Amino acid sequence: MTDVGALGAGAEFDAIRLMIERWGTRARGIGDDAAVVALPRGDALVASVDTAVEGKHFRPEWLTPREISYRAVAAALSDLAAMAAKPVGVLVAITLPERWRENLIELADGIADAVDVAHTTIRGGNLSDGSELSITTTVLGATFKPVGRKGSRIGDHVYVTGRLGAPATAVRMLSEGKTPAQYRERFARPIPRILEAVWLAGRGISAAVDISDGLVADAGQLAAANGLGIALDAALVPRFADVAIDVALSGGEEYELLVTAPTDLDVAEFEGRFALPLTRIGVVTPMAAEPVVVTGARVGSLHGYDHFSV
Amino acid sequence: MTDVGALGAGAEFDAIRLMIERWGTRARGIGDDAAVVALPRGDALVASVDTAVEGKHFRPEWLTPREISYRAVAAALSDLAAMAAKPVGVLVAITLPERWRENLIELADGIADAVDVAHTTIRGGNLSDGSELSITTTVLGATFKPVGRKGSRIGDHVYVTGRLGAPATAVRMLSEGKTPAQYRERFARPIPRILEAVWLAGRGISAAVDISDGLVADAGQLAAANGLGIALDAALVPRFADVAIDVALSGGEEYELLVTAPTDLDVAEFEGRFALPLTRIGVVTPMAAEPVVVTGARVGSLHGYDHFSV
Repeated sequence: MTDVGALGAGAEFDAIRLMIERWGTRARGIGDDAAVVALPRGDALVASVDTAVEGKHFRPEWLTPREISYRAVAAALSDLAAMAAKPVGVLVAITLPERWRENLIELADGIADAVDVAHTTIRGGNLSDGSELSITTTVLGATFKPVGRKGSRIGDHVYVTGRLGAPATAVRMLSEGKTPAQYRERFARPIPRILEAVWLAGRGISAAVDISDGLVADAGQLAAANGLGIALDAALVPRFADVAIDVALSGGEEYELLVTAPTDLDVAEFEGRFALPLTRIGVVTPMAAEPVVVTGARVGSLHGYDHFSV
Repeated sequence: MTDVGALGAGAEFDAIRLMIERWGTRARGIGDDAAVVALPRGDALVASVDTAVEGKHFRPEWLTPREISYRAVAAALSDLAAMAAKPVGVLVAITLPERWRENLIELADGIADAVDVAHTTIRGGNLSDGSELSITTTVLGATFKPVGRKGSRIGDHVYVTGRLGAPATAVRMLSEGKTPAQYRERFARPIPRILEAVWLAGRGISAAVDISDGLVADAGQLAAANGLGIALDAALVPRFADVAIDVALSGGEEYELLVTAPTDLDVAEFEGRFALPLTRIGVVTPMAAEPVVVTGARVGSLHGYDHFSV
């Protein structure tokens, strides 16, 4: 059975909910970052699909072709990280307009970069003509113990990887015609936290999401999936240099992980191993009026990141 | 290692070959209808992706929205049939322009129809905004003994399922503004030959393809993959009522199976079980100047079906 309630708000989610309701029992396991499919010999396959459309999910003038395809595939791989699955391959379907054909090699190289970062390979693809560049990536992973959005309990600690706010700052500067300088790399070359997720799963985390829609928005997704609340202390949220707290809380295009854990995680071991911060930023609470309550800072209006508005 | 030679001719294949060469060892198993991915516990996962783009792969004025999404998903499922894999699920990524939103329920119903025909379920999806309707379907299957394009030997019999030519005849009539009458159903509602493929795999076939690009074109793909030739007797090719031999040989949009087998297949048992013809139409030969030699009928210029020209 698919748990429609696990999906969040917004027009895109409404449309997805409508389709899932129409599908009834034909739709299975949708609502997590990736589906878990049981195979005959006992493997648990984790699968997810993600599309990046020119002008909707990326602006060609902000990125090189190699960065565009890298980001598309890396974003899809991040859904495997959110499930703590080890990648076994990707399939890439590209709609390639005539005007993009001269960039084919660069697009291929960006895909290669992304599978290299995740230590995986390309297992299939499709190339179509069309009027806008579009890259649809299916990621396949294997896991012995999948982690999903559900599993958090009241009192669990909430942790986040990395330092937040650089991609959103880069997007804002790019839209203002400025050079994003030190913020650009985190926007143009996000790193799916694959190995980090496998480590975290081995330490007994109860749930995980990636925060591609922004910390507060995705924390809200995780809270909704569990029928619980999340209280975040804004003062604890790790920020990239000179990033405003609002941006760190709501900025999208992050591919860090938000996890809940019933016990203290060994932060020093994690940070030593991955050279990446792991920070406790809150706690799982009973359900409240708002799924996510932010304390510890005077913050403006917080909202999730809408890909459609890029 | 990926066998670039297994891909056929044409601009689309050239572009794919270019990417695969660029990817080197990062690309694995591409060239068959679907990739076979080995999983930790011993499962053989079969995966493939296929995209249908408005105005390129289908014309909205020829089909209902429900038929458009049905065909997109059924075509992808046919790649599992070509590998004799049993579907374990599909993932559907839809790019949905504003003007298509009112058809969302019909599109959902067509996807449901296709998974019902293949006795499978929807395991994930993605919905994006964009300027043209596009449906990218990833199909996942499991198999204990995958069948690919390679494996044919000289002297193997060549069989085809079904009766050919109806979809291409329907397309021709539609492009001439005529009503395709009895030909329409085979074009609008192609049936992936999933159960038939599993039966054939159990009877020791040596190779298989679906003939979505047309009998002669896909026979050429199979011949090329094996470094051999195929001789077809046109007089034996089963045709839909009142279809010209040229159309049966070269018409695309078929989702029948072409298989090679080292021994006689039990045609009566197959036909009794599936209410579908299984016809011996040729033999595997040494490589000749042309990969496919057609005898037994005076035929015009034969060429594969180009999706881009629809």
